[in-house]
Amino acid sequence: MKSVFLTPGPSELYFTTEDHIRQAMREQVCSISHRSKAFEGIYKKAVDELKALLNVPEDYHVLFTASATEVWERLIQNCVDHQTCHLVNGSFSRRFYDFANKLGRKAILHEKPLGQGFNADEIELNSSTEMLCLTQNETSTGVQLPIEDIYKFREKNPDTLIAVDAVSSIPYVDLDYSKIDSLFFSVQKGMGLPAGLGVWIVSERCVAKAYKRLENGESAGTYHSLPSLLEKAAKNQTPETPNMLGIYLLGKVCEDMNRRGIANIRQETNYKAALINFLYNEHPLFSHFVQEEKHRSKTVLVGDVKGIAAAELIEKVKAKGMTIGSGYGKNKASQIRIANFPTHSKEIFERLVDVLNEIKA
Amino acid sequence: MKSVFLTPGPSELYFTTEDHIRQAMREQVCSISHRSKAFEGIYKKAVDELKALLNVPEDYHVLFTASATEVWERLIQNCVDHQTCHLVNGSFSRRFYDFANKLGRKAILHEKPLGQGFNADEIELNSSTEMLCLTQNETSTGVQLPIEDIYKFREKNPDTLIAVDAVSSIPYVDLDYSKIDSLFFSVQKGMGLPAGLGVWIVSERCVAKAYKRLENGESAGTYHSLPSLLEKAAKNQTPETPNMLGIYLLGKVCEDMNRRGIANIRQETNYKAALINFLYNEHPLFSHFVQEEKHRSKTVLVGDVKGIAAAELIEKVKAKGMTIGSGYGKNKASQIRIANFPTHSKEIFERLVDVLNEIKA
Repeated sequence: MKSVFLTPGPSELYFTTEDHIRQAMREQVCSISHRSKAFEGIYKKAVDELKALLNVPEDYHVLFTASATEVWERLIQNCVDHQTCHLVNGSFSRRFYDFANKLGRKAILHEKPLGQGFNADEIELNSSTEMLCLTQNETSTGVQLPIEDIYKFREKNPDTLIAVDAVSSIPYVDLDYSKIDSLFFSVQKGMGLPAGLGVWIVSERCVAKAYKRLENGESAGTYHSLPSLLEKAAKNQTPETPNMLGIYLLGKVCEDMNRRGIANIRQETNYKAALINFLYNEHPLFSHFVQEEKHRSKTVLVGDVKGIAAAELIEKVKAKGMTIGSGYGKNKASQIRIANFPTHSKEIFERLVDVLNEIKA
Repeated sequence: MKSVFLTPGPSELYFTTEDHIRQAMREQVCSISHRSKAFEGIYKKAVDELKALLNVPEDYHVLFTASATEVWERLIQNCVDHQTCHLVNGSFSRRFYDFANKLGRKAILHEKPLGQGFNADEIELNSSTEMLCLTQNETSTGVQLPIEDIYKFREKNPDTLIAVDAVSSIPYVDLDYSKIDSLFFSVQKGMGLPAGLGVWIVSERCVAKAYKRLENGESAGTYHSLPSLLEKAAKNQTPETPNMLGIYLLGKVCEDMNRRGIANIRQETNYKAALINFLYNEHPLFSHFVQEEKHRSKTVLVGDVKGIAAAELIEKVKAKGMTIGSGYGKNKASQIRIANFPTHSKEIFERLVDVLNEIKA
């Protein structure tokens, strides 16, 4: 039996994705040359629709990688000579920090216990920090970094590059891109697409840094260095044969979302988050994992479960046709994570709340 | 109107691929967790079926990247401290060489004019060469390196790692893997799958070299270092959320090919190549680009075209429902490239020959 996936990893496909895959087969998108005019049109449509959806400024570049994981590596290779700074409060922000270490950079660590968030006022950046690495939405804990805090970092550190991991908050998060230098995500969460494509948005400041590294005789990588990506992007192409189907689907789904209106999507996301937050507040089996309201993610809703094993609860929900996520890592046994993405309808959330309300310890 | 793609870039999908995509949608392959038992089963099936198809020894590892382009980078990062040696006779072998330079290694270059191949007897390796980088099938020129020459390199240089780019000859090429250390390809050519997945086969000698680099304080990259890939592969997982649909389809198509029998596929490939070779020998409009018969690829058949512009000829073939490839780079105007992959039936090749025979200058 098919289940509706409300998981924050790969999640339910956007409700139009399957139709677009069928259309891609009819158009033979997987057989055309990645150097053809036809593919250049597909590439340009994806970039244009995405820029419209997220309100990305004209002078920011949209580039394609294989995953958001890859972007952690490429950002450090291209834009950092010596030092990064990381705000770590979960598994994914920690991996970004680990990557900087593995690539031989000095990585400054600020850390919070799981479930807690950061306030810009409490962090002072060392003046040698070239890039501040922020996880806007920590998928493992459901903790968000409010965008006002991101803007404060910019005000206090105008010369530091700011990189934002928004893997599980795009397209919901409404950012002023001119106040950051890079944002990236993978498409299998909020965009509702098959995994295997990362989207990397970069400012001219990032680009300048990469060219500077090359001038200084430093390495910026090979085919996915910023100069290599940009050279091909100028022709609406990629350095390698990319996930062409993924890029096609991204353009189509962004177009669908633009038609629906990003303001509507955000409003519905707020409504659905409110339903679950009310449940976490009121229901005896649940409580919020994230105590501070301003740090609670609207797109990954993490609840502590009491009086019943999380796995048992998840099975009971599955029996009703919905798959919700377990807690991450050591919280697997005691937490649930509910994804709140554009493909998830209000009706599904209302039904989920009904199902959760019926569950007894 | 749909066309049959006989192009050596992305090409015609394997004739069962579309059905498998539909089945993947029914099974919700794109929504399940990449850390679930269900995905581990998909991963294991792909590895097992591929190993059976290509007769890969038990102690060789099958790993997944985003492209064969990525493997050029990962091989050098993981397995080379100082020096590589490259046999270059086309655009793709040259890019492998470029990658070694970009990553700060000393790359020894042996070069042949386009259309010519190498003989193992004429190449002496410098004793400091850690990895010999071979392009078994140069997609840009249709030149192959016979496997007997690869084995001669091994005999003469038993301590050098041998890496084989077989992007456009898999699954046709029939290699004894114990005589090489790595082979890699992307799936959008002979395997007939959507682009966005690379397959990287590695020996224990490659693995040992990567661990040695880490012990010596050298970098082997981050999530796609061999140690990181192998740690997850041991659990039938990947370090990042991968192209799950691609891995699913690879397992299914390898299973289909195993059922058909790799010996049959190879025999049919030989038959189809013979049809085109006869045409290139006999037809007044065509001649072989690759003069030396032993260096002629069976899977990418490159012909010089005289008396008619290649673009015009390609259009005439397209009007009959078939898309063949143009020459690569500077040979675009004067050459055609015909892919001969397992999805291309004998009947399609017979029809192509009829169509080409009807064309007048």
